[in-house]
Amino acid sequence: MLKFQILKNSRKSSFRIGKITTLHGSFSTPAFNLGTEIILANTYHLYLRPGEKNIKKMNGLHQFMNWDKPLLTDSGGFQVFSLAKMRKIKEDGVEFSSHIDGSKHFLTSEKVIDIQYALGADIMMPLDYCATYPCSYKEAERAVRLTLAWARRSRERLDKLTSKDRPALFGIVQGSTFSDLREYCARELIKLNFDGYAIGGLAVGEPKKEEWKIIRHLDKILPKDKPRYLMGVGDPEDLITATKLGIDMFDCVLPTRLARHGVVFQTKNLKLNLLKSELKTDKNPIDKNCSCYTCKNNFSRGYLHHLIKEKEILCHRLLTIHNLYFIQNLLKQIING
Amino acid sequence: MLKFQILKNSRKSSFRIGKITTLHGSFSTPAFNLGTEIILANTYHLYLRPGEKNIKKMNGLHQFMNWDKPLLTDSGGFQVFSLAKMRKIKEDGVEFSSHIDGSKHFLTSEKVIDIQYALGADIMMPLDYCATYPCSYKEAERAVRLTLAWARRSRERLDKLTSKDRPALFGIVQGSTFSDLREYCARELIKLNFDGYAIGGLAVGEPKKEEWKIIRHLDKILPKDKPRYLMGVGDPEDLITATKLGIDMFDCVLPTRLARHGVVFQTKNLKLNLLKSELKTDKNPIDKNCSCYTCKNNFSRGYLHHLIKEKEILCHRLLTIHNLYFIQNLLKQIING
Repeated sequence: MLKFQILKNSRKSSFRIGKITTLHGSFSTPAFNLGTEIILANTYHLYLRPGEKNIKKMNGLHQFMNWDKPLLTDSGGFQVFSLAKMRKIKEDGVEFSSHIDGSKHFLTSEKVIDIQYALGADIMMPLDYCATYPCSYKEAERAVRLTLAWARRSRERLDKLTSKDRPALFGIVQGSTFSDLREYCARELIKLNFDGYAIGGLAVGEPKKEEWKIIRHLDKILPKDKPRYLMGVGDPEDLITATKLGIDMFDCVLPTRLARHGVVFQTKNLKLNLLKSELKTDKNPIDKNCSCYTCKNNFSRGYLHHLIKEKEILCHRLLTIHNLYFIQNLLKQIING
Repeated sequence: MLKFQILKNSRKSSFRIGKITTLHGSFSTPAFNLGTEIILANTYHLYLRPGEKNIKKMNGLHQFMNWDKPLLTDSGGFQVFSLAKMRKIKEDGVEFSSHIDGSKHFLTSEKVIDIQYALGADIMMPLDYCATYPCSYKEAERAVRLTLAWARRSRERLDKLTSKDRPALFGIVQGSTFSDLREYCARELIKLNFDGYAIGGLAVGEPKKEEWKIIRHLDKILPKDKPRYLMGVGDPEDLITATKLGIDMFDCVLPTRLARHGVVFQTKNLKLNLLKSELKTDKNPIDKNCSCYTCKNNFSRGYLHHLIKEKEILCHRLLTIHNLYFIQNLLKQIING
């Protein structure tokens, strides 16, 4: 189940403000994965540990991690390609060795749906094949062919598993930087009538120009009445640009990864590295005008610098809070014009 | 400045309920270091990084770490003995190499007071010599002699630095497991009229029987109208016993160290290791009757088990919250009879 209401359309761009309703309530768009309204969980990690069967025993992922709002799960495909060892793409899925213990696994498109269903996701992603950048036309063509085949089979599997009150399933557009392949992939997916459409395989190293070319092209093809999800994009300026091209949903590790490295957002195009030694006795908060917990409570740059140097884990918390607040706030400003 | 009010004396034991007022407000006793009312900071660590001069530039430790309630600092002596390399005890202090970069340092009793004064502590501890266990009578005698000399010099140094509104300074009783040395040390310290008395050099490996023998003996000697601080004790059953022998203040790494290892308090004599594989799908909280954030919010044992296995740092937070709450609650129960 997924309901998408467009509350406002921009007259100048494809930008829209919306509301998506899932089995566990609704969230506003444009939305960033981690926030107060919806979070994303990684199927690959949960499948390997603790295993979807154990999470099902614990009454599903919502109960397991004590989160009763909308929950999106990815297909695990991206992690298989980036983390797992000795992966092998086959016609009906992907074979790989666990990055934890080397154990062998074979994930078919059907199994990926079964796992996400056991986890109890509100929005699911089908297994897709994310080609690396750069890749040949032939390689991108194969990625599209497999992604489409798996999308169809995912759709059928979910239809079999559920009747009413079923979780939403998105289609994922692949095709690297080739506009014709992207268009073909999108049109084929649209025929299957998914609850929403994700754009995968971007922000994987290609020039920004190429990225925007593809998104602009897909803006003309993807149905306006369905949510659009740009996977793996989280840079502040990119969020602004992408919302103008009609993107409704985002996810990215950037805010947490930067925090782990002591880096915080200051403005949409300025970041501050708190490890710089001249900040050692800086009494200012990260940003005087920021209302996040970290800035509001006068945790100074000097103190944060000290926590990072001491590898005191409180720094991860304080910096992550600021970075996520920054992104949430940016989207709020975009929504409020 | 330190004011100690005894609000209630037990008729059956030396147990008392009190209130200690410092430059930054008051806290109830019996008290455990980390709680809502007072916290302890390590002079050794702060001296080495970021350095007391930098903290002074940041307007003192209270402002630096955003804590405006009472603050106790130790002398750093214990860390010098347990962490630093190549330490050498001299008549006027201790020479050692930093455990961080091997740099050489010499801390005199005067310098230790200067550092704590720069940090802005409300309650200070003088440099003391904590003998290891077991130790010979001669060694313990030397520890007492140096501890007393340093206590006198610390006292004089603080008198010179400050006039009114000065932080409190405790005397530390050493003497290992030798009752006569402990008594001698206590009586000499009492002559110097400290704001309170700490019992150091216990819980360092000696049998429990020996520990209680010393505390019982000192209960008869230490003035009833001054707070008593048992350093390094935090086991629930020990806290109960010690409060009956008139101890008012405690500090210990136990709640956080256990949390780091996945172990939580269940009852005063029962701990639970959350890493046990049979807890993998246990839906219960750590303790159904506990009102801490972790237990109240239904973070199940199965979920906590998973977080620990994944080395997800949220587990440190959730487990530490429970363990500290447990100790605070235990003391509350003791206070309320």
